[in-house]
Formats: sequence, C-alpha cells, structure tokens
Amino acid sequence: MFDLITFGEAMVRLSAPDFKRLEQTTTLDINIGGAEMNVAVAAARIGLKSSFVTALPSNPLGRMIANKAREHGVDTSHIVWSDNGRAGLYFVEFGSAPRGTAVLYDRADSALAQIQPDAVDWDKLFSNTRVFHTTGITPGVSDTAATVAMEALAEARRKKVLVSFDVNYRERLWNRERARAVLVPMLEYVDVLFVTESDITRVLGIEAGDSEKMARSIFEQFGTKVIVTTASGASIREGKAFAAAAYAGGRFYGERGYKVETVDRIGAGDTFVAGFLYSYLSDKTDIQQALQYGVAISALKHTFPGDISWINLDEVQRLIAEKESREISR
Amino acid sequence: MFDLITFGEAMVRLSAPDFKRLEQTTTLDINIGGAEMNVAVAAARIGLKSSFVTALPSNPLGRMIANKAREHGVDTSHIVWSDNGRAGLYFVEFGSAPRGTAVLYDRADSALAQIQPDAVDWDKLFSNTRVFHTTGITPGVSDTAATVAMEALAEARRKKVLVSFDVNYRERLWNRERARAVLVPMLEYVDVLFVTESDITRVLGIEAGDSEKMARSIFEQFGTKVIVTTASGASIREGKAFAAAAYAGGRFYGERGYKVETVDRIGAGDTFVAGFLYSYLSDKTDIQQALQYGVAISALKHTFPGDISWINLDEVQRLIAEKESREISR
Amino acid sequence: MFDLITFGEAMVRLSAPDFKRLEQTTTLDINIGGAEMNVAVAAARIGLKSSFVTALPSNPLGRMIANKAREHGVDTSHIVWSDNGRAGLYFVEFGSAPRGTAVLYDRADSALAQIQPDAVDWDKLFSNTRVFHTTGITPGVSDTAATVAMEALAEARRKKVLVSFDVNYRERLWNRERARAVLVPMLEYVDVLFVTESDITRVLGIEAGDSEKMARSIFEQFGTKVIVTTASGASIREGKAFAAAAYAGGRFYGERGYKVETVDRIGAGDTFVAGFLYSYLSDKTDIQQALQYGVAISALKHTFPGDISWINLDEVQRLIAEKESREISR
Amino acid sequence: MFDLITFGEAMVRLSAPDFKRLEQTTTLDINIGGAEMNVAVAAARIGLKSSFVTALPSNPLGRMIANKAREHGVDTSHIVWSDNGRAGLYFVEFGSAPRGTAVLYDRADSALAQIQPDAVDWDKLFSNTRVFHTTGITPGVSDTAATVAMEALAEARRKKVLVSFDVNYRERLWNRERARAVLVPMLEYVDVLFVTESDITRVLGIEAGDSEKMARSIFEQFGTKVIVTTASGASIREGKAFAAAAYAGGRFYGERGYKVETVDRIGAGDTFVAGFLYSYLSDKTDIQQALQYGVAISALKHTFPGDISWINLDEVQRLIAEKESREISR
Amino acid sequence: MFDLITFGEAMVRLSAPDFKRLEQTTTLDINIGGAEMNVAVAAARIGLKSSFVTALPSNPLGRMIANKAREHGVDTSHIVWSDNGRAGLYFVEFGSAPRGTAVLYDRADSALAQIQPDAVDWDKLFSNTRVFHTTGITPGVSDTAATVAMEALAEARRKKVLVSFDVNYRERLWNRERARAVLVPMLEYVDVLFVTESDITRVLGIEAGDSEKMARSIFEQFGTKVIVTTASGASIREGKAFAAAAYAGGRFYGERGYKVETVDRIGAGDTFVAGFLYSYLSDKTDIQQALQYGVAISALKHTFPGDISWINLDEVQRLIAEKESREISR
Amino acid sequence: MFDLITFGEAMVRLSAPDFKRLEQTTTLDINIGGAEMNVAVAAARIGLKSSFVTALPSNPLGRMIANKAREHGVDTSHIVWSDNGRAGLYFVEFGSAPRGTAVLYDRADSALAQIQPDAVDWDKLFSNTRVFHTTGITPGVSDTAATVAMEALAEARRKKVLVSFDVNYRERLWNRERARAVLVPMLEYVDVLFVTESDITRVLGIEAGDSEKMARSIFEQFGTKVIVTTASGASIREGKAFAAAAYAGGRFYGERGYKVETVDRIGAGDTFVAGFLYSYLSDKTDIQQALQYGVAISALKHTFPGDISWINLDEVQRLIAEKESREISR
Repeated sequence: MFDLITFGEAMVRLSAPDFKRLEQTTTLDINIGGAEMNVAVAAARIGLKSSFVTALPSNPLGRMIANKAREHGVDTSHIVWSDNGRAGLYFVEFGSAPRGTAVLYDRADSALAQIQPDAVDWDKLFSNTRVFHTTGITPGVSDTAATVAMEALAEARRKKVLVSFDVNYRERLWNRERARAVLVPMLEYVDVLFVTESDITRVLGIEAGDSEKMARSIFEQFGTKVIVTTASGASIREGKAFAAAAYAGGRFYGERGYKVETVDRIGAGDTFVAGFLYSYLSDKTDIQQALQYGVAISALKHTFPGDISWINLDEVQRLIAEKESREISR
Repeated sequence: MFDLITFGEAMVRLSAPDFKRLEQTTTLDINIGGAEMNVAVAAARIGLKSSFVTALPSNPLGRMIANKAREHGVDTSHIVWSDNGRAGLYFVEFGSAPRGTAVLYDRADSALAQIQPDAVDWDKLFSNTRVFHTTGITPGVSDTAATVAMEALAEARRKKVLVSFDVNYRERLWNRERARAVLVPMLEYVDVLFVTESDITRVLGIEAGDSEKMARSIFEQFGTKVIVTTASGASIREGKAFAAAAYAGGRFYGERGYKVETVDRIGAGDTFVAGFLYSYLSDKTDIQQALQYGVAISALKHTFPGDISWINLDEVQRLIAEKESREISR
Repeated sequence: MFDLITFGEAMVRLSAPDFKRLEQTTTLDINIGGAEMNVAVAAARIGLKSSFVTALPSNPLGRMIANKAREHGVDTSHIVWSDNGRAGLYFVEFGSAPRGTAVLYDRADSALAQIQPDAVDWDKLFSNTRVFHTTGITPGVSDTAATVAMEALAEARRKKVLVSFDVNYRERLWNRERARAVLVPMLEYVDVLFVTESDITRVLGIEAGDSEKMARSIFEQFGTKVIVTTASGASIREGKAFAAAAYAGGRFYGERGYKVETVDRIGAGDTFVAGFLYSYLSDKTDIQQALQYGVAISALKHTFPGDISWINLDEVQRLIAEKESREISR
Repeated sequence: MFDLITFGEAMVRLSAPDFKRLEQTTTLDINIGGAEMNVAVAAARIGLKSSFVTALPSNPLGRMIANKAREHGVDTSHIVWSDNGRAGLYFVEFGSAPRGTAVLYDRADSALAQIQPDAVDWDKLFSNTRVFHTTGITPGVSDTAATVAMEALAEARRKKVLVSFDVNYRERLWNRERARAVLVPMLEYVDVLFVTESDITRVLGIEAGDSEKMARSIFEQFGTKVIVTTASGASIREGKAFAAAAYAGGRFYGERGYKVETVDRIGAGDTFVAGFLYSYLSDKTDIQQALQYGVAISALKHTFPGDISWINLDEVQRLIAEKESREISR
Repeated sequence: MFDLITFGEAMVRLSAPDFKRLEQTTTLDINIGGAEMNVAVAAARIGLKSSFVTALPSNPLGRMIANKAREHGVDTSHIVWSDNGRAGLYFVEFGSAPRGTAVLYDRADSALAQIQPDAVDWDKLFSNTRVFHTTGITPGVSDTAATVAMEALAEARRKKVLVSFDVNYRERLWNRERARAVLVPMLEYVDVLFVTESDITRVLGIEAGDSEKMARSIFEQFGTKVIVTTASGASIREGKAFAAAAYAGGRFYGERGYKVETVDRIGAGDTFVAGFLYSYLSDKTDIQQALQYGVAISALKHTFPGDISWINLDEVQRLIAEKESREISR
Repeated sequence: MFDLITFGEAMVRLSAPDFKRLEQTTTLDINIGGAEMNVAVAAARIGLKSSFVTALPSNPLGRMIANKAREHGVDTSHIVWSDNGRAGLYFVEFGSAPRGTAVLYDRADSALAQIQPDAVDWDKLFSNTRVFHTTGITPGVSDTAATVAMEALAEARRKKVLVSFDVNYRERLWNRERARAVLVPMLEYVDVLFVTESDITRVLGIEAGDSEKMARSIFEQFGTKVIVTTASGASIREGKAFAAAAYAGGRFYGERGYKVETVDRIGAGDTFVAGFLYSYLSDKTDIQQALQYGVAISALKHTFPGDISWINLDEVQRLIAEKESREISR
C-alpha cells in the first residue's frame, strides 16, 4: 500500500524572523516539523508513496499540521484525531556566531503523548508496506507513545516490513539512562539504523572511536543490517571528513559533503534519512549511492527556511552528477 | 471512487495587499483560484471525497497549484502534467467604494488551454463517481479545452454520473454569441445548473423576469432537473430578496442571506456550489436545505482572504442553526 | 506603595493577521494579554502607580510578558519567577460577520497554575496600597491559584485595601457550578464588583431582570459597595441602552456609549475597569464620572490592535469633553 | 512649457500600519506627501504636463521625494537642491472612531524653510505655462518661503499665467492672525481659489453663512474669478449637501458626493484641485464639469493608501458617467 | 537630445523573499528588470540623459514598468503603448550554496514580442543622440523585435550614433545556431561590444583562449572598435583574474574586482555597461578608466535587492578612489 | 539608589530592511538607540539597577524611547519631559561589501539639545549611586547639553560616584578642535575611560603608537584610573590582535575576540561598556575579567537587529566559559 510509513510527533514551529531574539520579536513565522513527518515529506517529494501516522488534536493547529504534510503528497488518512491533548509547539530563535540557534520546546501533553495503546491498526497498515521508520524521540514523548511505537516495531517485524530507526536522542525529553533502557530493546527490531557518533556513546553506551569501529560494535551487539553514522553536530559540509558513513555487509562506506551556505539546518538529518531510504529501496546493494542521495538532499535542505523538504528528485540527482563530474575532473 | 470530480482551470492569483493599487504595490500576496478547483476544495473540506482534474505545467507554479488543492484533501492524482503551456495567472486589485475590485487576467496559453483531446481517461475516472462538475469558463479557455469538457459531459451521462454545471460567463474570455454556441449544447447533459440572473438573459438568451419565471423557462427549454439561480452580482447578504433560489420538481425555493462584512468575495459563488452539492448528495429531495448550505457556506467564504474555502462542516451547520433559531424567535 | 495591585495570569497572544484563519496563516502577530495585567497596564498609562503580580516561567516568553507590562510603566518586581510551568498561550482568529472571532486557549499547566500557597508576600505588598484587583479567571486557572487569590483577598480586607473584582466567567476554564462554589465566597471580600448581566444570572444565580434590579439583588445578597454592570457581550457602542451602569449608595447610574469602529475588542472590558478605578480613586462619590471614564477609555481601546491599552489620560478626558459638549448642544 | 506648475513643500510621510498607535508600532510605511506635490502628481496622471518646484536636501530622503514625483511623470528638473535643511517629515497614526487620525509634524528647518529669495527663476519657468498653483501652507513654512511664494505670484500675474490657490490653513504652522496678514495680500493675485467653509471664517475673516453667500463675499472683496468651496472637514461623501460648490461669473454651482469607504483620506483635497483644474483648463466655461471631475477624482483618492493619486483619467470619467446614468435613472 | 538610448524588453520580476522556494512562498517581492532598461536606469542615475524604448501593454503592469524607469530619471516618452501583448514576467528563486538561483521566465507574447516594424521613429530619436545600446536578448524575443532592432542599428550607423551592444545570449530564448544567424550580421554595426568569454565561443563561434586572444579575434572578424569581455559567470570579485578586460586600439586592458558580499547579482552586468559607457563618453581614450567605472558600479550593484541600480556617481568615484589608495599603499 | 546612571541623547532609529537602500525602501524598521541609553539597557539586563537620564519631547516618539528603555528594566523616572524640541532621529542603510553601512542623522534641535542648566537634580540622583556614565556625544549635542553634562561630572566627583566616560567622537556633530576643547576638561573627572585608538590621536591629540603606549600617555596626562582601548573600527572578532585592552594600576591587559557573524553592529561598543562596568563593579581588581565580560557581551550584541542589548547574564558567562575551555584545550 505504501512505500514508507513513519510514526512520531509533529509540531507547529514558531520562529522569530531576521535573527531577532524571541523576547524581541513581534511576529512569528509558522512552519511545521517533527522528525518522522520530515522524513515522510522529504520522501514523498522524491517519489516514495508515504504515510505519516501520529495523533493530532481536532483544532486549527492540528489540522494545519496534517494539511502541510498532505500538501507535499503525504497520506494523512491514518492520523489519530483526538479531543484530548494539544498540538505540540516549539519556538526557534536563529543564531549567528557566537550565538547558537536556540529551541524552546512546548510539547508536553500533546495529543501524541496521550495516545492510547491499540489506537493505530498496525496490522492493517503494514500489509503491502516496504519500510517503517520511527525515531528515538517518539518513545521519549510519553510512556504510551513508547508502547505504541513498540507495537509498531513488533508488527513490522512480523509483517517483514523493513524497519528504519533514527536514534535522535533529545536531552530535554529524557535522560540517558531512561533513553537507553527504552531504546536498546527497540534496536532488536531495526534493520537500518541512523545514529550520530555522539549518540553511539552517550545513548548506546559504546566506546568512542572512529566511525567504522563504532559501527562495527553496533553490528556486533545488535546485528543491525545497515548502520549509518553522521558526525555529531556536523552539517553536511565540504571537508576532509566524511559527512556520513555506513557499515553494511561487513563493508564500510563514506561520503564527503558539500559547500553549504546555511539558511536553516533544522530537519536536515531527517531529509538525509529520506534520501538514503529512497535510494536504498531502489537498490539495496548500492550503499554508496544511498549515502550520496542522503548527503545531497540534506545539503539542499539547508538552503531554505523550514524543517520540511521542498526538494525534487531531479535536483538531488543533478547535484550528485555535478559532484561526480567535479571529482572526476580533479 | 469519488463523490465529486471537477474539471477546469486553476490559476495562481497575485493580489496587492491593503487596498493598494497594482501600480503601487511592491509585494503581492499569492493565492490559488479557479472556479472548479474552488468547488473541489470547498467540498473536500466539508466531507466530499473530491478530485480535481486539470492540466498544469511541470514547474514550481504548477506544483504550487496542485499542492494547495492537496493541502485541503483534494485528490490531484489525475492532473495532466505538461511541458507545454504556462500556469495561468490573475492579478487582483481590491477595491473600496466607489472603486471596484479589478481583475487583470493573464491566462492565455495556459497548460489547460493546450490540453489535447483524450488527455483524460474519463471512462476510468467516472466509475463509481457520484457527481461531475464543470463551468462555462472551461470551454472558454480554448477549443481543445471545450472538446475535453464535452468528452467529460458525454462520458458522465453515459456512466449516469450526476452532472453539475455553473454557467459562469466571462466576458473577457469570449463574446456572448460564441459562448452561447458552445454552452447551449452542453446544457443537454446537465442535471444541476447554477446560473446568475444576468447570465440567463445574456448567455442563454432567455427573457428577463422574476427568478421563478426564468428558471421555469430554462426547465422548459433544457429539461434541467435542478436550476439554481443567484441574483446577478449579489453577494450573499441579508435583505428582502432571496440570496439564492432554486427550481426543481416543479417547485420554487428561495433562501435569504446573511449580514456579511466582506473581506474577499472572490470564489464565494464556487463555495456556494460546493455547499449545495454536499447537501443535495445527502438528500436529493431537500432542495431548501441545499440552498441553506449553499448560502451559509458562501456567506462564510466572504470573511477571509483567498479564493478557496477554509470552512469546516460544523461551522456551516452552526451558522444555519443560529439563523433558524433567530428566525423562529422573530 | 502602589495605587493598584492586580493579580492573575498573563499570556502570550498569537493572532492571525488580516482576517486569515488560523489554519491558513503563515505568520502570527504577538501581543500579550490577561485580564488583570490589562487592568494594570491601562491604569499605569493614565497615572496610577500599578504593580502586576503573577507567576511566569524563566524563559523568553515569560520575560516577554514582564517586559511588555514594564514597557507601560507597570511594576513587575513582585512577579514570581518559576522553573516550572509554561507561559500560557492563546491563539486568536479575528472574525468578520457572520464569522465570529475565535479564541483557542493553550494555557494549561502555566506557571501561574502551578503557583504555591504563600508564594506571594501579600502582607508586605499591601502596606500602603489603595486598591487590589483580581478576576474570576484567576481562581479558575488552578486550585493553588484559587488559594493564592483567596489569601490576597483576605489580606487585602485585613489591611483595609479596597478590593475590586471582575467576575469574568470563562466557560472553557470551568463549569458554572464549580465557578459559583469558588467565586461566591470570594464576593464577601469585594468592595467594587464588575459583572456582565449574563454572568449575574449564570454564575451568581440571580434572576434576570433589568440592570438596576439585578444590581440591587447583588447588593442585598453580598453588601457590595459598588456594583458595575455591563450589557452582556455588548461593546461600548452608541445606542439607546446604557453601555455600562452602576449601583452604589442606593442609587443607580447609567452611561451611554460611543460610535465605535472596532479594530480589536479583546481587553476592552479590562480597560473599562482601569478607567473606572482611576476616577473612583480620585473621587469615590462621583460614580457617574467613574462610568464616564470607564466607557470612554473602553471605547478608545477598540481602535488599535492588541489586548493592552495604549491610551493616555488626556485622550480619555478629551473624548469625555467632546461627548459632553455634543450632549449639551443637542 | 508646462500646463501646471506647483510650488510648495513635500515631505516624507511615515505611518503606522494596521491602525497601530505610533508608540506601539515597530515598522513604518513610507509615502510622500505635500499639498502642492499632490496636486502636481494627480494632474500629471490625468494628462496635464506638470512640474513641481520645491527645495530638497541632497540626501536619500530628498531624492526619494523627487523620485516618487517623477515616477508619476511630474517634471522635477526645477527643484532646488540644497546642502542646508532637512527633509520635512510627518508621522501619521490612522484613527478608527472614536479615535481620530493624528498627525505629528516634524518639518521645522526643512530645505524649503531655508530657501533663499531668487532661488527659483520664475521668469523663465512661467513662459508658456498655463496655470500656477500654490497653497497657504507654503508661506507658513518660513518667511523666506513666503517671499519666494510671493515672487511666484507676482511673476505669474505679470506673465498672465492663471493663478490657483488653496487656502489650506494649518493651525500647527501659524496662528490665524499671522496667516491672515500674509495670505490676504496674496489673494489679490489669485484667479481660482479653493477654500473650506471654516477657513473662510477663521482665516479670511468673512462671516459664516451658506456656501453661496460666503463665496459671493469673497468675490466682492477680492474679485476672484472662480471660488471653490468644500464643506469643512467633509469628505466627498454621498449625501444631501454638496460635496463641493463653486461661484463664478455670478453663478453658483454645487456637486453631490459619492458613497465612499475610506482607506486613506489624506491628500484627497489636493486631488480634488487637480481634477478641477484639469477640467477647467479644457473648458473654462463649464464650471459644473470641473466640480464633477474634482469630486469624482477626490472620491477615488480615498480608496488606497498614501497621499498621492494613483488614478487615471478613464477611471474618473467612468465614475462620472456611472453617476450620471444613476441620476438619470432615478 | 539624449546621451543614451536603449531598446529592449523590460519585465516585472517576482521573487520569493528570504531564500524561500517558489513553491513555498506566500508572497512575492516586485521589482522590474530587463537588460536594456537596467542600463538606462544605471546610466541616468550617474548623469547620462537616457531614454528607454520598448513596447508595453496599457495596463497596470505596463505602467509600473514605465513608472519605475521614470522614477530614476529615465525618459519614457518614446515607449510604444500597446493593447496587444502582455507584460513579460519572470519569477526568481534566490539560491544559497549548493542550490543556485533559479529563474522561471514567463515572457512569451509580450508587447515587445508583438511590436511591428516602423513602430519606433528611430530617425527622429537619433538626432542629437550620443550612444545607442541594445543586447542580443532583444532579437531573441521575436522576429519583429529583431526587425525593429535591426532598423535601430542601421539608423544609428546612418546617423553616426555610437552603437553599444551586449551579446547576452539566453539559452531559454533560442538555440545557438539561430542566435548566431541573427546576431552576427548585427555585429557589423557595433562600435562597443560587451561579451562574456563563454558567449564568444558558443555564440560567435570563436575558439576559446585567453581574453586578449579572443578579443583580438573578434576585432579581426568584425572590426569592432572596443571589445569588453567579462569572465563567464564571474561576479565582480576580488581575485587574481581580471573581473573585466577590454581590447581597443590594438591594446589590452584588465581590471581587478572587489570583495563582494552578494545580496542580489541580477542586473550587475547591465550596470557594468552603464558605468563603462559613462566613462567612455566622457573620455574615449581612457579605456582603463571605463573598466574601473564598470567594475566599481557593478560591484556596488550586488549589494541591494533588485535588478536596477540605486547607485550615485559619487559612490562609484569614492569606491574607485579607495581602491586606488589601497593599491598604492601595498 | 542606582548602580548605574547614564546621561545622554536617545533617538528613534529608522532602518531600511533587507539591505535595501534608503531611497528604495517602502517601509522602515523602528528601533531606539543612543550611546548612553544603550549602556543603561545592556547593564540593566545583566543585573545592574540602572537609570537613564535624558530629555524627551512629550509626544509618541518621545514616549516610545522611554517605553523601550523601561521594557528592559531601566528606570526612566528622571527623564526630563519637554514641550520644546523634537525626538532625534537617525536613518540607517545597512551595507554589504563593498558598500558600507550608512547613517543619516536627523537629530538637530532635539529635546536634549534644548535642555536647560539645572534641569536635572544631580545632587539628589547621585546619593547612593555607584557609577555615572556619559559619552563625548552628549556635550557635542548642544552647548546647554555640554553644560548639563559638566554639572553631572562635577557633582559625581563631589559625591564620590565613580565616573565612566566613552570618548565616542562623532565627526558629524563637531570638528576635532571644538571636541577637544570641550572634552579634555571633562577628562579630569573621569575614573574609567573608554576610547578607540583613533580617537586617542584625533581627539586627545596623543601620538599614535601601540595600545599600551597610548594608554600610558593618557594616564600620564589625566591620571585616569582605568583606560580601556578598542582597536579603531574593529569589531569584536577573533584574530591575533586584542579586541580590547586596558591599562590600570600600571599594568596592561588584553583580550582577544570571537568569531562573529554580524547581523547589526551598531551599539556593540556601548554594550561592551556595560559588560565591563558590570564586572568592574563586582571586582575592581580583576581588570582581565572586566575585559572578558565586555568582549563577550559585545560579540553577542552583533547577532540580532537593533542598537540595544537583548542579552542575559547567563549567556555572557556561558560564552566566556566556552572560550576558556577552548583555550585550555588548545
């Protein structure tokens, strides 16, 4: 039925324009965001039939979130509409060196946090679906959200749906110990794992080292088929180091980044996931190409405002082609 | 498959903010509009499963039009994407008495104007569809658009899909003679006809008179099942006259309007059609209720910017209920 | 120390510009509001030394609320700063007939809702203070907020500080029974009561009748010194009926309204209170003048965006003078 | 050389958007204005070859004023550019009843206030010119501005250029006595006089009465060929009274107004002058038509933001034709 | 009569603000642009008496284009006003690395494309004119536009008006073969040629090489007096290479660029032409100075939004002086 | 009573958005600024009880200035409100290389310029005050402003209030000779002097040299306790040179800068002063720490729009801590 189903929280993002501080601004720009919705939108735009599952309040803010996902072609017919819970919000204050971008979350008691077990019919949703994606944020939202996420993972495994998971540890949601206790059991179900280097150590508890070594440790511990790592906090920039790397089938792959003038980097990691999965679904043996798609689409995501992707497939492919021709001519 | 399929041209609307003149403004507000798309959006929001069929160029403006229809839940998977033709545009300058609102159309050579016969698979689309709606604008766009519209009407009749048609004569597209020559043969296929009093005389060539008499003349001439008339140029305002009237099954129905503070009246007539059809599909015998829905949703459409509807079903029903309780208490 | 101390919740108000619907807007205008803060600001601008007591979170939104009160000269040094609780929010969608203005509250779990008993040193605050004002919203926010409000009322009575109270029943906070159970005991402490005609019946449980009769019933039941009533839902408009009325010392006073072109009516009732109290503090025997000040400042409040007052004393006095000269010349 | 030359001060106008109060706003909208420039712009747009003479500082604000006049086709090659003096400014706070629109002038020490006698070569400018227009504001700006205005009037008379003059008394520039002392001698040179009813009494010292009587008094005192009066403070509105009236050749003419929804009325009087002069220059015997043009263009001026006219000749003529057909059909 | 006459198409430019994608934006910023108009505006601002000749539709968009040229002092009295044809439009999406700036042209069937031979009286226009400038875009607009351009070139030669020409090949207008067939015959009439290095090879068909060699080839083939080349796609940036170079009188001249923080580079090449011509007209022997003026004004053009120049002569001269003093002090 | 009192002129700042040129913009952003007010605001936000003394006109612009200072917690109760004089204005055009930021002052005849001797009761204000700060701008505003500044300096010395002074020479206010004649006598009263390297030579007439040598010359000439120098025109940037240096107690201290992406540098120097004084008041022996605070808060000031600081103490301290940990890890 769908190429991709994602599950998680989506929020209304309110940001101060023109590098104003939140205290200072008299208007806010509205966008929507949320790791799993970002993946669904970015994937839908480049050609995956995608559905986003969440819980939303039956009010204008809830409808706005669903509308904007639908605007990009994401199926929203499996959203759980609720009279309880609010729309999660987050306020963004864009930084300029030496002041960093600051995020003020106001997401407690959201509709997703109040979702009830069995609220989603995963059994039905997963017939004929190719990949399911969620992140470590979802179980951090509430205990019941964690329960529903676990229901989804178990059902996906049962239905032989490929499971993709982004660790995405959020310090402001829960501490490392609680996160580890909940996330480690989930990893048993994961086929494709996305994780930053710093989350490997602080959440998975694996000793720091080079990317390859850490990825291999994850493989040894969880048997994950594909492990994709990105440098902690690194943007997808040109440089000596890899912007992203992967370990799969006993081999290690690395991909360099692009020269990026950042307009808005929020959501770039989620867009990376969408690019990777798009390529991976089309050819599971070409991990290097999947990294290329992920890095290219993520670089493009930095160049316009908002969390969600406005990138088309031909733009990703053209950027990859230019990079290759540059590398050849060197 | 769908409750409602509409076919016609959608355009990008560019309007000067704050009552500025076009010559004067330094920014433009973007909305999208087009009679048939407006009907599809308004209907989708209140619960009809709707699809909008058109032709659009494969560029950002074309995609924007499809996105915005999809944002409201309208199916856009049957749009014909084209490398020929441009996105139609229209510029709006809002007026304030004694200066009227002015529209500058820039729609020539649009993708829809260049649509080719057989571009749409009406046969497939009309299986399982309840109502098809188009307007007199579509055949005015180009000869091939007229051909495709006629294909649709004929196929709808063949498939016993209810046909809804809004005369919507546009002087700037074609003159009365050409319009009459093309539109009159189309009326043979129409089950529910929407027409302003002035179009009855200038396009259909029927003598002016009271609403009821003119509607009966149409019935006598074309055998149209339901004829809905609105006072020429009238907004859906409170007053002695009916805001809208209908003639069906030999009976005449009239519905009064609301006190309206107009923010943007463009598209209000299309929203009326959506409200009427919504109610009519649920109960074909209650013409009075269909008028109520049409008038109420149309009144609400005047109260926010843009051509397309942002109105939910409960808002329409609440407004009707308030009106009824007011009328009872009088 | 202060002419006026008010206590209650202040929120960040986020409104859609230009009559857009919330679902539709891409930006929000920021203002701050809250019944008791509105009174403090309006009073400070016309010359009362005012302090606003509340609880706010130590984050940019909390600071923004305090800043904006301070901008108008309100003392904010007695605000309770908290690491718990969020800044209350409310979203406004301005209406245009027949669509009403809609408010979406998102105020649960605010810092004020989580205030603890004894968090405010009322004893110290009330030395040398002339009037204390709060509303029926505050005890509706949470049980502890109700407790702190009751502490304030009791302490004010003890210190012989005049107590002003606006019933301000909010259906979305609590039901009538709960409101009545909490508010009626509070009325024992009130010297100047502001109440709409509809709240007199639905909250105080007093039979509907004319203003004077209802006010007298309140006096008989609670012995309130001054009872100020405003027509339910009425704006401060020109007309035959009184815009506001008062019952004091066994006498009834009424004041007519103004011709008003409304830009934003939210907060107008609170500004009325400020105008009334300003005049009343300067001359407790001239109730008619207090009504004049209240009605005039409230009319002016309708004419610019935002909940809070930007009106100066000379503007109020000039408007009253013009009205008087008009009435004389008739 | 020119159909019309005007002389006076032009300023940068800074206004608060959306009915905000000046104290409240965080942005200002920029327009330019000034009675004589307004006349030149409005006249140029409807077909008079116009030149605007003033003094401006050689800085971005000065250039902006000249640019905007030139944008509408007004000749600016006779502007006196100066290193002394500033660009006059005025701040506008739009009102909404019962709060009136407020203007804060900040025009002292402008470049025009510092203009020197003989700075303008009137002799050369007035060869081949049909009408010269200035207002009572110009001599109020400074003594030297008054001197230069008088030079212009005298030279115009010498060259047999028609002289048009709008009394336009501004209380904030000078008191009635000083204004009268300066303006009355100027009236000797005036052929076409524009004056509000209230200025007739407070500046010219003529007893109040009906329009016709007051106009005749002016004629008797000054021998002015054409005297055009407008009701004091009246907008060009539909109603029983005349919106404007004229006395010429011993006859009295009156013209009714239009239904007007006002967006911005500043500059409407100046636009009236332009409309009157346009018609008068084309036919000096048809005073009624000149009033029609003045009233129609002035009504249109109310409908968009800014002091200056964005109206074309065909719009004026269409409005007049509609009015006439309405009056006939009554 | 004029120092400079330019002929070509001017369009309304609609751009998405704040690096938004076109699909994403809800407002558009309006500017006007067009290679030949840009030259006329930039030249007029620094002191050349300039006239811009084009064809425009008699509607608000056409008037807006003329207004904005006139705002900067460009003569617009020779524009051909037309009831046929539309105003050309182009949509701009500003890029940020690695996403490039994208332009969506919507210029087909413009008024200029429909211009008729003999529509412009070149004979009259060229008496007393010093230089005529057009570009390779104009003949690409339509066959009749090419005809009128050729009429102009021939008449300029006849009247001994200096002819300036910018090759400006636009792939989206026509292919190289058609461009070459039309443009090469035009070069016979050209005195001062502006051409990028890449256009020398792809349009003129001259073998790639260093600037000097390519310029000499052009001279040998066409006998062009002055050949000005700019590095393909290069902005006017500081660096080792020349930002612009010229070949004249058998000598080669090169000029280095500036450190530039780009806000909007569109139109910078046209501004370069204006700077070059300004200096060249004042001293035809000082080619190095003409390059200096061109490079300096073009660098300044990058620093504000819009295609057209807002630069004054003193700013250009100050920048050149600073550069010279920097170079001396090294 | 206050930790800090500052005295000087505050103005309304009107700036063109988005790198537009002033001539080009149609809106202006409003901020407030003025060296001494900037110091008071920045200091109040990080914890000093501050009062700002100035003269302001009793109009909306004057009130706006006081409001905005009060918004940040600055005491404004000692402002001299005046019916004479205007609010000083300045227009800002933000630059982008190679075009510099340009300021157009329009501050003549401000309320402060017209302040009268003895208008401020310094005697009362300085009881219980820790530091008084003014700058070399204040005496440049007018002779009477200079007189009042001198009254303040003398009274501060008498009351043993620490005197802080920023030379801040403004070429557009007065020439070097007049500045020197007025400022040098003031330096006798100064305890903490802030001065750029270029002002040391051009205003104080001390020979150029390295920072330390110049500072020592000042000490030798005036006996100033603490002399803080900043590199002329330098922003607070990372680099080899010191961003700021100080000479005190015979020792020289230097502090390096930060990597800064500048949004708006205006007011950064004033914010530096506030940071320095904050630290210095808490520990007069730790000059190095005072430089750290000054440099850190000044770097942060560059990162948002407006002259005034929106920085909190914890942000300054966190930035310093990060810098130290970076330096340690090197």
